Amino acid sequence: MVTSSVPEQQVLTPAAVFDWLDEAAELRARAGLTRTLRSRPAEDPVLDLANNDYLGLVHHPAVTRAAADAVMRWGGGSTGSRLVTGTTELHTELERELAEFCGFEAALVFSSGYAANLAALTALTDPDTLIVSDAYNHASLIDGCRLSRSDVHRAPHSDPAAVAEALATRTHRRALVVSDTVFSVDGNAAPLAGLASAARAHGAALLLDDAHGFGVLGPGGTGAPAAAGLSGQPDVVATVTLSKSLGSQGGAVLGPRRVIRHLTETARTFIFDTGLAPAAVGAALGALRLLRAEPQRADRAREVARTLADRLTAAGLRASTPDAAVVSVRAPGPEAAVQWAADCRTAGLAVGCFRPPSVPDGISRLRLTARGDLTDDQISQAVEIVRAMEPVEE
Amino acid sequence: MVTSSVPEQQVLTPAAVFDWLDEAAELRARAGLTRTLRSRPAEDPVLDLANNDYLGLVHHPAVTRAAADAVMRWGGGSTGSRLVTGTTELHTELERELAEFCGFEAALVFSSGYAANLAALTALTDPDTLIVSDAYNHASLIDGCRLSRSDVHRAPHSDPAAVAEALATRTHRRALVVSDTVFSVDGNAAPLAGLASAARAHGAALLLDDAHGFGVLGPGGTGAPAAAGLSGQPDVVATVTLSKSLGSQGGAVLGPRRVIRHLTETARTFIFDTGLAPAAVGAALGALRLLRAEPQRADRAREVARTLADRLTAAGLRASTPDAAVVSVRAPGPEAAVQWAADCRTAGLAVGCFRPPSVPDGISRLRLTARGDLTDDQISQAVEIVRAMEPVEE
Repeated sequence: MVTSSVPEQQVLTPAAVFDWLDEAAELRARAGLTRTLRSRPAEDPVLDLANNDYLGLVHHPAVTRAAADAVMRWGGGSTGSRLVTGTTELHTELERELAEFCGFEAALVFSSGYAANLAALTALTDPDTLIVSDAYNHASLIDGCRLSRSDVHRAPHSDPAAVAEALATRTHRRALVVSDTVFSVDGNAAPLAGLASAARAHGAALLLDDAHGFGVLGPGGTGAPAAAGLSGQPDVVATVTLSKSLGSQGGAVLGPRRVIRHLTETARTFIFDTGLAPAAVGAALGALRLLRAEPQRADRAREVARTLADRLTAAGLRASTPDAAVVSVRAPGPEAAVQWAADCRTAGLAVGCFRPPSVPDGISRLRLTARGDLTDDQISQAVEIVRAMEPVEE
Repeated sequence: MVTSSVPEQQVLTPAAVFDWLDEAAELRARAGLTRTLRSRPAEDPVLDLANNDYLGLVHHPAVTRAAADAVMRWGGGSTGSRLVTGTTELHTELERELAEFCGFEAALVFSSGYAANLAALTALTDPDTLIVSDAYNHASLIDGCRLSRSDVHRAPHSDPAAVAEALATRTHRRALVVSDTVFSVDGNAAPLAGLASAARAHGAALLLDDAHGFGVLGPGGTGAPAAAGLSGQPDVVATVTLSKSLGSQGGAVLGPRRVIRHLTETARTFIFDTGLAPAAVGAALGALRLLRAEPQRADRAREVARTLADRLTAAGLRASTPDAAVVSVRAPGPEAAVQWAADCRTAGLAVGCFRPPSVPDGISRLRLTARGDLTDDQISQAVEIVRAMEPVEE
């Protein structure tokens, strides 16, 4: 038996091992940062502008029927990791159609957008790579940077000149520039042309997380890389989610065939994860085919966003200028944001509430999803409810 | 414009940015490590012992009907992150029933077991924590260790004395011992009693990944922690997958209520991921309720494993002694393992093929899943096919 270097009375009892979590909870509570899970019913009377169902497809029969059909044909799960038994013909169909739709050579589907981002960042970098990452990037991109064995340079938000400078002064053989295409909180677009120029001037690859652009931006919702003329380029890789515009679950990496091959053979979150469930694959395929047949759905989401932002601004609120299907409204502070969101819910409107530490700039706001299936009456209803909140004083 | 520190001719053209991936592919090919996605049809005539469908529930009507019903009621996706709109009443039901079934205070569902493991390892540790991790742990646990900000000690495989020594000589305030309960490749169980003693002697928490034990071990498949008397203990946290015994997709963390609360409020792969799709939640609930009603399904999986291993051994093969529902058979080397697996498939049997670098001990083998729904005839068929392979010579 090894003698403990800690005096015996200091060894925690089993009951006390997690006492520190209560202290942490107390600190969060004192800082007003307690988060509570709210469980929603199937028939919720509120107008839901808090979700990410950008095209309003989550209950569309073309999506739910495809999901149910996939379950009955392929089973409740994919049964294994993608390289063993977890790839059905349905997965391959989705990958082919996704790549074609977005204008890339190939695609690889993951169980989440989070897993897709971890895969791209770890497999496309090495210790001799500099990753230049936008300061406002999503948590999954940040975790991907951490999991990579590369040096990471955090570039100021939406600043291609700063990206170029970091690339120019690097000592690393390789470099990868990574950015969200649309930032979730304000719905503002990244300067893709500038980022691509910066990357190309210095021989760097470009990784774009199009979670909030796919289905909304580009011709027929083909995404922000397509809108910027970057889809299918040999130095560009994109990630998308299947859980937002497509009303399903999962994520995908899109890129040159050799990138997809490399991820298939080396990315740990691909190799060691169970394949996406058939229902989710089916739902995503159903939504994708619907979007191909009805490309105006993407235009409508952008139109709703502009209308919503214009009318909120006209009502005296500080609404963001939306580049995709998200509109944010500044609140005077975190407490006001929480109060506003609660008041909205009482009035029949669900909105997102973002406050520190979830907002990189420290500004609290409400976040409204400009769902493409909203009627003009619903837009008016949302504006009326939000404008009834107390005026912004900062 | 910033002047590049690299001479201009060295800046890669866009077309050449990913040339290095082709070189990497060439190296893998030369080492015999190329991996290829095989896309399976819905009606596959082979006997599938390569999957992780331990109880054979993936096509069970109780599972598929529950999944399809969930889609029709709740939609194709959960629409958002769990703390915003991604928690339905169905998620809460599953969490309550999972916790009760496994004997823990509370549960939290994730989009994958991978995400659950990343959450537990990052949220329950800090820079003043020593993580003691079994050398053969799953990739997701290893990535969780990397993502944590803690020091990580890699302990020899299944060696509680070594774990105790690492804990005793630590300088860190806190410690966490982490291990798979059943190791995927050979199906061998971890020494849970020894690990728990070691952890408790030194005031450490214990995190157990029960991906391959849940549904198979413990009374009625309640899992390895239950079998070891560790479920519901104040210092024990477990993770499970919904994609193996439950024939669905997703993962969960089980533990004391305060651990689950802490994860809910702080774990990045929980907060910043879209909630699990309703279909997967429904499928998992359907399977869980079936297992509660028919607990003999877990016994049968273990019985199939023992029978399979005994008969393979009697046939002169080097089969593992199964602790759960996995049996491995040693192959003379990596090429033989690949050839054997291909020959099995030709003969109508799908088996897993593990070889370096996916096996921590460097030993190549076939991996057979002892599915609980196998008939005696199917077991005989599998044994006949495997015994027809060339004898093992090492």
